[in-house]
Amino acid sequence: WLPTNPARAMSSITVQPPKCLQKTFVAPRRHMFGPGPSNVPPRILAAGAEPIIGHMHPEMLEIMSDIKSGIQYAFQTQNNMTIAVSGTGHTAMECAIFNAVEPGEGVLTAVNGIWGERAAEMALAKHKPVLFFLTHGESSTGVVHPLDGIGDICHKHNCLFLVDCVASMGGAPLHMDKQGIDILYSGSQKVLNAPPGTAPISFSERACQKVFNRKTKPVSFFLDMTWLANYWGCDGKPARIYHHTAPVSAFYSLRESLAILAEQGLENSWRRHKEVAEYFHEGLENMGLKLFVKDKNARLPTVTTIVAPPGYDWKEITSYIMKNHNLEISGGLGPSVGQVLRVGLMGGNSSKASVDMVLEALRDALRYCHKSKV
Amino acid sequence: WLPTNPARAMSSITVQPPKCLQKTFVAPRRHMFGPGPSNVPPRILAAGAEPIIGHMHPEMLEIMSDIKSGIQYAFQTQNNMTIAVSGTGHTAMECAIFNAVEPGEGVLTAVNGIWGERAAEMALAKHKPVLFFLTHGESSTGVVHPLDGIGDICHKHNCLFLVDCVASMGGAPLHMDKQGIDILYSGSQKVLNAPPGTAPISFSERACQKVFNRKTKPVSFFLDMTWLANYWGCDGKPARIYHHTAPVSAFYSLRESLAILAEQGLENSWRRHKEVAEYFHEGLENMGLKLFVKDKNARLPTVTTIVAPPGYDWKEITSYIMKNHNLEISGGLGPSVGQVLRVGLMGGNSSKASVDMVLEALRDALRYCHKSKV
Repeated sequence: WLPTNPARAMSSITVQPPKCLQKTFVAPRRHMFGPGPSNVPPRILAAGAEPIIGHMHPEMLEIMSDIKSGIQYAFQTQNNMTIAVSGTGHTAMECAIFNAVEPGEGVLTAVNGIWGERAAEMALAKHKPVLFFLTHGESSTGVVHPLDGIGDICHKHNCLFLVDCVASMGGAPLHMDKQGIDILYSGSQKVLNAPPGTAPISFSERACQKVFNRKTKPVSFFLDMTWLANYWGCDGKPARIYHHTAPVSAFYSLRESLAILAEQGLENSWRRHKEVAEYFHEGLENMGLKLFVKDKNARLPTVTTIVAPPGYDWKEITSYIMKNHNLEISGGLGPSVGQVLRVGLMGGNSSKASVDMVLEALRDALRYCHKSKV
Repeated sequence: WLPTNPARAMSSITVQPPKCLQKTFVAPRRHMFGPGPSNVPPRILAAGAEPIIGHMHPEMLEIMSDIKSGIQYAFQTQNNMTIAVSGTGHTAMECAIFNAVEPGEGVLTAVNGIWGERAAEMALAKHKPVLFFLTHGESSTGVVHPLDGIGDICHKHNCLFLVDCVASMGGAPLHMDKQGIDILYSGSQKVLNAPPGTAPISFSERACQKVFNRKTKPVSFFLDMTWLANYWGCDGKPARIYHHTAPVSAFYSLRESLAILAEQGLENSWRRHKEVAEYFHEGLENMGLKLFVKDKNARLPTVTTIVAPPGYDWKEITSYIMKNHNLEISGGLGPSVGQVLRVGLMGGNSSKASVDMVLEALRDALRYCHKSKV
């Protein structure tokens, strides 16, 4: 199609086409060994590049049903109320809280803790929250938090147990049903190796009792589980009502990533992440580096935190490795900034070959980066 | 990698790998001529399949800067506070309202209206809202709403002017700055032809004054513009602080879609959508079909509403066309259900060849679908 009469413009524009968009974008090829996003294998990228179909087409509803089954497997849950949120892990967190909590109700959050039974009991008895929030895999510190027994304590105190498994799902043992988790959410861009932008979430029967018997509506229509449950075919109603336009391509990728996890087997994935992490940790210690988490059982198998080597500028190390090895590792986050280096080996990136690559890069960086004489 | 000792499983699983994920998914090839999502051209699909990089890598920040420029062009605005929300059009709507409105404040929404100046004046004086919400292109009815003059009236009443241009942007003339629009948002999956999942949004200086001087925090951290402004480099601060993991692949696609719009030229795109729509409308009337919107100037050039042909079941028509022509057109939405057929010809789908295809499909359907004798 060519403009027939450019002079007959409907209305003159005041902002011209930006020159920066004339450049063709080609993404650099990088080893994504930071805390996420991780590398997306060609098979998942290809799935995401399939042609678009409608967000209500029968094939799309089937994909969503497949995704639901895949999440149930990854979470080890029979919960019917299992979906993917059209957003990131943060969106899923808001979905959990917006739906489960009403104005005036309290939420208790575990910060930086290894919460034992006694601590949980005391805190729940004191604060009487309706929701207790715990992160299973804390990627900022590299700690995996034990989950056994906490659900029971929550339920004794009439409190729902909400768990963030963004950094751990698929990489560390997790049993939603057996562990009495009421709301569990994750992200697509860690062990699943899908692009960021979709987030598995599941609600137990106990959670549904609260969510679907609220007196007030959740503040977000977009994240209202009453609507999402219908769109995902979880409410038993025959008709699906238009709620929002799902990110079709991102759901293709998510489905493929869950298919790969199902093919490989969840237990194999858990075991591989553990073995690769142990091989990595041994290699680091052999190099004279120190692990930030002393207790071996508390180490998250997906994201390793290394004590920032004394005398070095951590930023120089990560920059050096990015520049010379085309490989991302990262510094700390929040309270761990300046204290640690973080290396994520997740999903397809969890292999001894990746470990060898990271160790070589670190060895090289420690040789060539500046060391102060202090 | 192979499991070394399957018997030594860490913990037994209770939910087995789902069989449905063993099937390879191949998306059907369809002409997506409903109200959205529209077909995504190979160039945009290919951009979305580029390898993942980090959400804070310099190349990603450059892509975001390019996207910002592309949106400023598409919206015809110089607003610095211009970003893409990591979500759909609905998410952008919530972003606008969550950030611009505080508890206790009123919002006035134009429903189904052609709001003249007098009606707007009266409603604003009576209700004293802080935000007036109008949809530019109403895809449920096929109406494009005039915008000139409304911004001035809003400002006289100390009210912000919020416009939804999800279905119109790029397909109908729109000048954010000249028309005094304070908050404008759109979606990626209509004229832009990118997959659903990202949503352009822009805030005027006047809107920023309100958004960044709130007394309360917005209910959503994920959509808090204070954080998003920093991530998008709109707040003038040198350091970008981690807020959420952006949908990297979706941003690649969005950038490419904006690059195509910039290449083709916004005015050319507006003109083409108008000419193609007029050609389509003429063809429909020649077939004896009636347009739902009588006033030619009020017809949305991107989505056409056709009066549901009397005596036919509209669902049979859309199903017949999907089955026999591999082509999506849709029924009504909300109040227009049962009354109309809707055809969207957006972005690359806006061509006379597409029109001929739709007309042929409709002709065929009217011949073969059941007609009652009433």
